[in-house]
Parts: sequence; structure tokens; C-alpha cells
Amino acid sequence: MALIVQKYGGTSVGSVERIQNVARRIAAFKAQGNDVVVVVSAMSGETNRLVALAEALQETPDPREMDVVLATGEQVTIGLLAMALQNIGVPAKSYTGWQVAVKTDSAHTKARIESIDDAAMRADLQAGKVVIVAGFQGIDARGDITTLGRGGSDTSAVALAAALKADECQIYTDVDGVYTTDPRVVPEARRLERITFEEMLELASLGSKVLQIRAVEFAGKYHVRLRVLSSLEEGGEGTLITFEEDGNMERAAVAGIAFDKNQARINVRGVPDKPGIAYQILGAVADANIEVDMIIQNIGAEGTTDFSFTVPRGDYRKALKILEDVQHNIGASEVNSDAGVVKVSIVGLGMRSHVGVASTMFRTLAEENINIQMISTSEIKVSVLIDEKYTELATRVLHTVFGLDKPQA
Amino acid sequence: MALIVQKYGGTSVGSVERIQNVARRIAAFKAQGNDVVVVVSAMSGETNRLVALAEALQETPDPREMDVVLATGEQVTIGLLAMALQNIGVPAKSYTGWQVAVKTDSAHTKARIESIDDAAMRADLQAGKVVIVAGFQGIDARGDITTLGRGGSDTSAVALAAALKADECQIYTDVDGVYTTDPRVVPEARRLERITFEEMLELASLGSKVLQIRAVEFAGKYHVRLRVLSSLEEGGEGTLITFEEDGNMERAAVAGIAFDKNQARINVRGVPDKPGIAYQILGAVADANIEVDMIIQNIGAEGTTDFSFTVPRGDYRKALKILEDVQHNIGASEVNSDAGVVKVSIVGLGMRSHVGVASTMFRTLAEENINIQMISTSEIKVSVLIDEKYTELATRVLHTVFGLDKPQA
Repeated sequence: MALIVQKYGGTSVGSVERIQNVARRIAAFKAQGNDVVVVVSAMSGETNRLVALAEALQETPDPREMDVVLATGEQVTIGLLAMALQNIGVPAKSYTGWQVAVKTDSAHTKARIESIDDAAMRADLQAGKVVIVAGFQGIDARGDITTLGRGGSDTSAVALAAALKADECQIYTDVDGVYTTDPRVVPEARRLERITFEEMLELASLGSKVLQIRAVEFAGKYHVRLRVLSSLEEGGEGTLITFEEDGNMERAAVAGIAFDKNQARINVRGVPDKPGIAYQILGAVADANIEVDMIIQNIGAEGTTDFSFTVPRGDYRKALKILEDVQHNIGASEVNSDAGVVKVSIVGLGMRSHVGVASTMFRTLAEENINIQMISTSEIKVSVLIDEKYTELATRVLHTVFGLDKPQA
Repeated sequence: MALIVQKYGGTSVGSVERIQNVARRIAAFKAQGNDVVVVVSAMSGETNRLVALAEALQETPDPREMDVVLATGEQVTIGLLAMALQNIGVPAKSYTGWQVAVKTDSAHTKARIESIDDAAMRADLQAGKVVIVAGFQGIDARGDITTLGRGGSDTSAVALAAALKADECQIYTDVDGVYTTDPRVVPEARRLERITFEEMLELASLGSKVLQIRAVEFAGKYHVRLRVLSSLEEGGEGTLITFEEDGNMERAAVAGIAFDKNQARINVRGVPDKPGIAYQILGAVADANIEVDMIIQNIGAEGTTDFSFTVPRGDYRKALKILEDVQHNIGASEVNSDAGVVKVSIVGLGMRSHVGVASTMFRTLAEENINIQMISTSEIKVSVLIDEKYTELATRVLHTVFGLDKPQA
């Protein structure tokens, strides 16, 4: 008998029929003798509907009130799934984030989980119940409702698996595993049977859309066995995210290619080059709780420096406004920006032992006349920022040149 | 400066534009120097949408899970209204039922309020904020979400007004006050400037639809000054619900006529007439938390008795099922029922001092060939149960015969 945490996303619970399907799947799993804790998202479309209502009333909705509104989406799903399970004879009980309690910090709309109380859930499991928990939400020290940000339900699931010391955390999505790249862009993309946490971390953070980065980080930190599976097909193995590189496996240099369109580039030019400038620019942005991704500093003309970085597109206007204020303080000559960019990344543990991977990437893009605006590298990935319109072309040619079109060895 | 609790129903907050209207109205009220606590319902249609989802998943949705789902409706509205107020420069903060905390018993879907903690609200009012509270919901001793039943937001508003010792509790509805009867049925119906609690209690309990009965009870018990107003027109006086009959006012015998279609009649025939039978029949129904309204017991044939009572239509099937079990135990010869009935009532403090009111009612109905199935009376009302199809006819002829078509003296 195993204790399994399963997470079903918005598409999987997007209608009455789909909720019934999920209930049947959980019932079958429980009938095999497993204890099951289920984390669910809002029904697909619901979060967007709520955001639209909020934005119609306040240009930048108050974060505390936004969380009050957004948290209702998952709350509806947990109640409905509990009913669907009870209807087929499976005892089930729902919990909101504050009922569990999933304690978070107070960073509304992007809160971080601090602790989870597993007592009530354990008692329910002991009593033979399926426990259903609202993903994406928690409660802060003030008693205010918080949400974890888009995709936060994955993080909820992994955090619950860690708190409960579950045997496996299964993330059900509308894909049947992690692919070498987005199959909608490259039809030759293949499912990976396993992938390491390090690679997954890079792929998730770069927007492969299968798993939220914080969920992967959390799983890595607490050694949660994590599996990505299809909620549409039954019996699939999905992709297991492993802690260790499989030494026996002859790996290709590159495991996968990710692209992330949720990027906007901001350029600060002609900044007097003196210590503390980077902090003056990025500190103000960080204080506004805006995540900065790629950062590049270059020598500019006559003792000045040019500073570029990327932020999520949703925070782009806010970041620009902050920089307009900062511009005068630091004496920058110009602030410009571009929201029409994409970050394309190649990721693979094999890059450690294969030379020339980066140069192959740059050559391949050059042959297609794709201009590279920014480059950043780590031990197991190379990312380039390019014009958004080249997303598909760049991903396709890189998928081919790194041998990902061919079956896994 | 006064402390006012205002309650806006689902129609008043049914769209972005209507929420903005409510926000402007609150802002104007606050600008006059008042402290304002606002109670809101779910956006119109939302509760029905959620009920439909639940009933698609479970024929009789689990009450605890139903409350989890239903409570989201009001939670969305409080967040949105807070945003709308902030957007026009009015500081505002929302509270769910559990955040206030509105403590209730554990009778899911029809819980009763036990206590309210006013500390956080008072601090917010002190800080100049408008406080927005989700109506209809609370939390029980187990930490489970509860709801108060349809129309429960009125009760929430009155309970908050009592807890805060507010100067007035204003219920905004889609009518501009309490009418002598439903104007959609009788165009000659007139608005009452004031009505006593006793009369209002009878009118509300009989389905005049303006105010929930428990709200009126609560207001009477805690001496909350209650006013019903239109949320659509500004500047109206509405109807004030007074504690004392105005001695100077020459009152008509009947203040208003109510009809309630949420009735189903159940008939238990041929019950052996011995002590404890009423309890055996009604006890089982009450244990299932079904409200019984009219009750009549009559002598039947040969030492048996006939027993009739009415229940809300939504509980009708459940009550019938219970009685089928009970039938054998008590040896009743027959259980039959009719869900196509309406209760029509005349209400008025003046009935105390006017004789012949009841007989005028019965004569008027007889003249229209309307058969009376059940009769019940109290000091200030007479109710009859008749075939539902006569609702409009009965109400119209009674409105005329009791002089309600003419302007108030």
C-alpha cells in the first residue's frame, strides 16, 4: 500500500464529465489499496474569468482582494470532486488552503509555502477517506487568503507530498509526459521516460509548461518522487523525474529544447559605470516583487555601461514605470524595451561532457538568419533571446541539429 | 456620524457595471460622514450555476461539500466590490464569513449564526475603511464552512448590525420597499412607508420575498432598525420596519397579502388515534432538518386520525421518503401528497381589533369558486392553502376586498 498525492489541472476538471472521469480514476487507484490525496486546480477558464472581472474593476487589482477572488476557483472544484467521489461510493472530504492549513508568506498572488499541517489529512486517510485539497492557495500569518501564482497547484501537490512523506507525487496534465520540446511546434518531439531534476528544473523554468519550476525545486529539495502523466489516457508511464543521472545510459548532449514567450526585454543605456549601479537598477525592480530572468551588462561608450534584463511580460509595464523613476537618479541616457521576444534554451546534463554544444546552437541559428539579442549560459543549458517570430523556426532547427528527432538510445 | 450596515443582493451586484454603481453609492454615503459595513450576496445567477454543477455530480449533494462550493459566490463579490471601491479612492477591505468570524452551528446549507467577532471590523472602520463582508456564510466549531440558506445574506447583515450596534441596517433590493402584495401580480399594490416587525415577520415568512424571515426575527430580537430600499433608484425612503405600532395612524385591518408557492402538502390518512402519533410523524421529518409549516390534524374514520402538513418544495421528496418508512410503523392507511399548492395569507395588526376579517377572506375566495385545502390562523394573520393555479386570482380579489388598492390613510 502506498500513499500517493495526485494533482489534476484545470483541463482535467474542466466539466462535470471530466470531474466524473477523475473521480473514477481516483476510485480505481484507491481500490488497488492506495491512500490518495488529491490536489485540484480551478476548472479551466475559471481563473481567466475571475481575472477579467477583477481587471474590469481595477486596472491593477489589489493583490489581497485578487487572492480572495482567485481562491474561489479551486474551492469550487474540491467540493464538486468530493461529491463526485461520494456519488460512486468513495468517502471523500475537501479542504481549502486555509483549512489544511497551508501557511504561506504574505506575498499576495505569488506567495510561498512555509508549512503544512498534516494532522487532519492523516486522520481522514486513516478513516479510509480520499482527501481533496484546493491547490494554488494558502493562508498567511494575518489570516488573509494567499495564492501561489499561476501553476501554483503543482507546488501545492509537491508540498503536500513532502509534508505527508508520500511515496509518489503524480502530476496529471494534458500531455503524457515531458517531451524533447513542444510537440505542437515540432511534430518529431518525443516523450522522455525519465529526466533528471536538474534538467527538469531548467526545462520548467524555461517554460516547457509541463511543471511549475517551484514544484520541481520543492520536489528536489524534499526528495519527492515526481511523475508527470496524462490525465486523458490511462495506463501510461509518463515521465519520471529522477534524482540521479542514469550512468548506464548513453545520453545525447541535449535532452530537450524549451522556449518561453513570457519574456520582455528592458534596456538601460548610458549608465555611468560605477559600483552599485546594478543594485540601483535591479533592487528597485526586485522590491516590486518582479522576477528578473536574464541579466546582461556590457561596456558602453565613454565610461558608461549598458544594462539589459528580462522580466515576465505581465510585469513589463510595472518594471518600465519603476525604471523611468530610477533613470533620473542614476543618470541613464535611455531606457528602451521590447515585449516581442522569446527565450529559446537547450538543456542537457550531457552538455557537461560534450564540447561545442553552444557554438553548434549559435551556428545553426545564424544559418537561419536569426539574430541573437541576449545569451545566458549555465552548466547544463544555453539560452538565447531572439525575436518572437522565430520561435518555431529556431526550435525546429535546434531539435534536428541536436539529434532529438531520433528515438532515445 | 452614523454606523450603517448596508446589504446588496445578487441583482445589485450582478455585473461589473452594477458593482461599480454600488461602489459609487457607498462612496457617497461614506462622504456624508457615515461608517459603512457592506454585506453582499453572490452575483445573480452564480448560486444557481453552482447548485446545477453540484446536482449534476450528486443527486443530493453532500451538505458539507455543498457549502464549500456555494460559499465561493459571495467570496468573489466581496473581492470585486473592494476593488471597485479602491478604484474610486475609497479604502476598503473584504472579509469572508470565516475571517470575520461569523460563527454558526453545523447545520450545513441552513446554519444559524451564534456569534460574530467585531474586533477586526471596528479597527478597519476606525482606520477609515469600508468593511465588506460575504453574506450567507460562516464557520462552525469544526472549522468547516457553513451557509445560512437562501436569502441568508439578509440575516448576515442584520446579525452584523446587531454585533456592531449599528444605527441602521439597510437592505437594498430590486423593489423600493415592502408592498401590500407582489406588484407583478396586483398592479394596484402600494408601497408601505412603515410596517411593524410583527407584520413584517408574517409577510416575510409567508414569502413576500423582500426580506428573509430569520433576518426580521434577528432584527426584532436585537432591536436593529431595519429599512428596505431600492438599489436601483436613489433617494427613496423605502419601508422602515418599526418596533411599535403607530397609535396615531388609522390602520386598515389588513396591511398586506403574501403568497408562498414554495409549499408542498403531505397527507397521512387513517392513523390510529393515540398519544405520540404527531411526534412519530413530525419528529422524523424534523430530524431530517426539514421545516414543517402548516400542520392540521382532523378526526378520521373509526378511531383514526388524518394528519396534513406542508414542507418546502425542495424537501418534498425527502419528506415523502421518510414518511413511507414511518407509515408502516404507525399503521397509517395512506400517504398522499400535492406539490402544486400555494399558501395565501392576509396579515395585519389591525386584525386584532377588526372582527370578521377571516370570514371576509373565506367568503371572497368562495365567490371565486376557489377551494380551501387547509387553514391556519394566528393573532395577526390568516393563511389558506389553495391550488397553485389560483395564486394570482386569489391575491387580486383579496387585495381589493381589504381596501389595499386605495392610497394609505
